[in-house]
Amino acid sequence: MKFRAEIDVMPLKELLDPQGKAVEQSLEKLNFDNINDVRIGKHITIKISADSKEAAQVKIEEACKKLLANPIMEGFRYEIFQD
Amino acid sequence: MKFRAEIDVMPLKELLDPQGKAVEQSLEKLNFDNINDVRIGKHITIKISADSKEAAQVKIEEACKKLLANPIMEGFRYEIFQD
Repeated sequence: MKFRAEIDVMPLKELLDPQGKAVEQSLEKLNFDNINDVRIGKHITIKISADSKEAAQVKIEEACKKLLANPIMEGFRYEIFQD
Repeated sequence: MKFRAEIDVMPLKELLDPQGKAVEQSLEKLNFDNINDVRIGKHITIKISADSKEAAQVKIEEACKKLLANPIMEGFRYEIFQD
């Protein structure tokens, strides 16, 4: 079966996010009021073939831990959809 | 009312995504089989105050068009949640 994983890798809440801060300031200069706490991370989509949704989930979890997210600085979450 | 926008900014389907390709090859080297079509973009969260969900949506749509996404190379989608 074919699945699609939608993964977000975001900087941990405890850490500063200079890229997000820069975008927040740019939005203020463009007169966007009432906007705050902009945080920027990565969005990753992966197509994966597996016998079941659970098997796909195990693979994606492993890929996040081994390669996609740096656990010192980033957290991740994902959803898996049947394609 | 306070809202949280979850925005994905992704490279357009028609374009190559060298970062995604590099991650795909790295996953293959780590013996992840059956994985393909890795694409990498940005995930942005923004907190916004607005009178209604519709008003927040108008602001976020405008922010995406003016600053967050480059329409030549990227598409965007977003969801708005009441916080």
